[in-house]
Amino acid sequence: MVTDLGGFVASTFKRGLQFINIPTSLLAMVDASVGGKNGIDLGHIKNQIGVINLPEMVLIDTDFLNTLPAEQIASGLAEMLKHGIIHSNNYWERVKNIAVSNKNEFETLIWDSIEIKKEIVAKDPLEKNLRKTLNYGHTLGHAIESYFLKSPDKKNLLHGEAVAAGMVLATFISMETYGFPKETLFDISKTIFKYFPKQSFDKKDIEAIINLLVFDKKNRNGQVLFVLMKDIGNYKIDCVVSNNLIYNAFDYYKNF
Amino acid sequence: MVTDLGGFVASTFKRGLQFINIPTSLLAMVDASVGGKNGIDLGHIKNQIGVINLPEMVLIDTDFLNTLPAEQIASGLAEMLKHGIIHSNNYWERVKNIAVSNKNEFETLIWDSIEIKKEIVAKDPLEKNLRKTLNYGHTLGHAIESYFLKSPDKKNLLHGEAVAAGMVLATFISMETYGFPKETLFDISKTIFKYFPKQSFDKKDIEAIINLLVFDKKNRNGQVLFVLMKDIGNYKIDCVVSNNLIYNAFDYYKNF
Repeated sequence: MVTDLGGFVASTFKRGLQFINIPTSLLAMVDASVGGKNGIDLGHIKNQIGVINLPEMVLIDTDFLNTLPAEQIASGLAEMLKHGIIHSNNYWERVKNIAVSNKNEFETLIWDSIEIKKEIVAKDPLEKNLRKTLNYGHTLGHAIESYFLKSPDKKNLLHGEAVAAGMVLATFISMETYGFPKETLFDISKTIFKYFPKQSFDKKDIEAIINLLVFDKKNRNGQVLFVLMKDIGNYKIDCVVSNNLIYNAFDYYKNF
Repeated sequence: MVTDLGGFVASTFKRGLQFINIPTSLLAMVDASVGGKNGIDLGHIKNQIGVINLPEMVLIDTDFLNTLPAEQIASGLAEMLKHGIIHSNNYWERVKNIAVSNKNEFETLIWDSIEIKKEIVAKDPLEKNLRKTLNYGHTLGHAIESYFLKSPDKKNLLHGEAVAAGMVLATFISMETYGFPKETLFDISKTIFKYFPKQSFDKKDIEAIINLLVFDKKNRNGQVLFVLMKDIGNYKIDCVVSNNLIYNAFDYYKNF
């Protein structure tokens, strides 16, 4: 939130100041501080306001992570798992077994995660195609996050918690639509439920979450467009998904 | 104001939408809608928030001017006079004798004014040097405009009214500092007072206006930097001006 707010203020104060990001949370290190996107919520809707503007520098010291609560580490881990799913089996296998307590290994994985994001952003800065993969799990994830934020009877989710649920849902939809391998779906689901508690969604919740999808920035001509995967590292952008399939995905999530 | 607000919202909503400007006031036609700068006031301080982002197109129909109040025509005229001063004797001589009722001539001058601004912006989009000339009269003009806006006993000035006063002041300072020709200063002053009523500034007003100069976006290292002219079409940027000289300029303005 701080790198988003700082980046947005720097980009719009006096028509733009230069700025550097110094992330101190894992989520900001591996995701928010890199790539130049910033987002401010409008009411309960996530990231409706923002610009794309690169910092002059991102300065990361992993010692900051020593004081970070465990659920905040997990929140950042969700984006690292995402980098594995969209990038390669190699990185997925390494990150899914991450040992946070092994400082050297953890630092190496953080570095690699940033490299993956940096490479994607450099190839497609304006998000015409490849960069959309960074939204994997985020279409439903953002809607879930927004819905929990505005619902008085739900606890607020951390960004990574919502994205983790979104990735299980998106991977199920990927299997149904593009034949994503079932055993890899199970592997991803098992990994995610190792780090993130299962959230409960009743029918009313799911309806409301589907209604929130219309605010997704990646929509075009009134259609909600998902990033889906044919396999790890093999993506498909701009996929139309039926509401029915989304309900089935929530069923899968609930019964896993 | 509408092209500024619209341009800012388009630039920051969902990380930026494409937009076109359709100015309907003279000020927006010859200035605000061209060049991609937008500005939102922060409290009483002019244009503290904004970005630089070009519209896809500017669409101008001068028929809109038929319904524009005379003081709004004058407000736009101030920027056209500015284009004359910063660009060339030729354009200055033509614009100072403008006959607004002659639709053909007026349209030609509007077109030429936009050409001048467009040419300057294209040569120096990021305002490293030449583009700063478009701020001629605006350093004190903005401070005057902000001061009148926040003072309960002053009527709000139109932008062009404040800039007109700022140009008389800046041209006097130009004469004192860089030998701007006295007879041209008189010509400019006479022309401006033909279109714009003289404002009154007492000592307290001037002090407060000088204090507002610190908010000017063109400041560097705490120094207020002016654009000044050695002659029509011959500029000097980043000029430091003493408060004393500013007081003398207000004296000149008052006694002209």
